[in-house]
Amino acid sequence: MYRNDGFRELDRLESLRLLGTAAIGRIVHTRQALPAVLPVNFCLDDDGAVVLRTSAASELARAVDGTVVAFEADEVDRTARSGWSVVLTGAAEVVTDPAEHRRLARRGPRSWVAVPPRQEVFIRILPELVTGREVAGDRALHDAELGA
Amino acid sequence: MYRNDGFRELDRLESLRLLGTAAIGRIVHTRQALPAVLPVNFCLDDDGAVVLRTSAASELARAVDGTVVAFEADEVDRTARSGWSVVLTGAAEVVTDPAEHRRLARRGPRSWVAVPPRQEVFIRILPELVTGREVAGDRALHDAELGA
Repeated sequence: MYRNDGFRELDRLESLRLLGTAAIGRIVHTRQALPAVLPVNFCLDDDGAVVLRTSAASELARAVDGTVVAFEADEVDRTARSGWSVVLTGAAEVVTDPAEHRRLARRGPRSWVAVPPRQEVFIRILPELVTGREVAGDRALHDAELGA
Repeated sequence: MYRNDGFRELDRLESLRLLGTAAIGRIVHTRQALPAVLPVNFCLDDDGAVVLRTSAASELARAVDGTVVAFEADEVDRTARSGWSVVLTGAAEVVTDPAEHRRLARRGPRSWVAVPPRQEVFIRILPELVTGREVAGDRALHDAELGA
C-alpha cells in the first residue's frame, strides 16, 4: 500500500468480501527472474485463501509452488470514476493431499468447461497479507491512477 | 507465456492494439522483496511504451524507476467466456527531460481531475517484450483459467 495517494484503505474483512465478488484475478509471481502476471479464474476458500484450478500440464503450478506470490483483483467504473482494488500476498502451494484435493474439486473454482479430474491440480494462496483500497465517485482523485 | 494451455497467442502488433483499448492496466513490480501489483490508468506512447502519470509524492515512481516491471491489461466476458490478456515487460523510467515531460503532459494519460503540474511525474515502461493471448467464445477453454 502506498501512502500520500488520497485513497481510502479497506480493512482485511472488507477486502476479502470484495475479493470474493470478483470473477477474475491476477496472479503475480517471478518467472525466469522477470515479473510475471497472469489473469485467472478463482474462488476464495473458507480461510480466505485464493484457490486456483489449473492443468497438470501447465507451467503455472511449477512456477509458483512454494513461493510468495501476490494476487490482485479490481473493479473500476470509468464513468463514475470509482472502484476498488484488493491485493492478497502469501505463499502459494499446490494441493497434494488427496482429501483436500477432493474437497476443492467439490467446492473449488468452477471450470468454464469440464476438465478430466486427473489432469487438474489446485493451487492455494495463503492470505498472509490482505490490503485493499477504494475510491468513491464523489471523491477527488489525485490523478489518473487508481492506486498510485 | 505458458505452453500447453490451449489459448491463441497474439503477435506484438495485435497485443499493442488491444492494450491501447484498455482503460486500466496493472503495474507489477517488486516492493520490499515481495511481489507487488497496482492498477493504474495509462496510455500508450507512439513507440508502444506504457505511460503512467503519478504524483511526485507517491512511492510508485521511486519503487519502479530503473527496474524491469510488467504491465498487464485484460478484458474478460464471463458470459461469453471470451477475453484477452496482454503483458508488456520492460524497464521503467521516470521521465526527467523537461521537453519530454512537456510532451507527455500534452498527450499523456488523462487525469480524472486536474493535478497541479509541479506535482506530477511521468513513468514510461519500455515495450521490450509484449505478449498476448486470446480465447474466443466458441473455443473450448481448458479449465477455469484465462491464462494458465
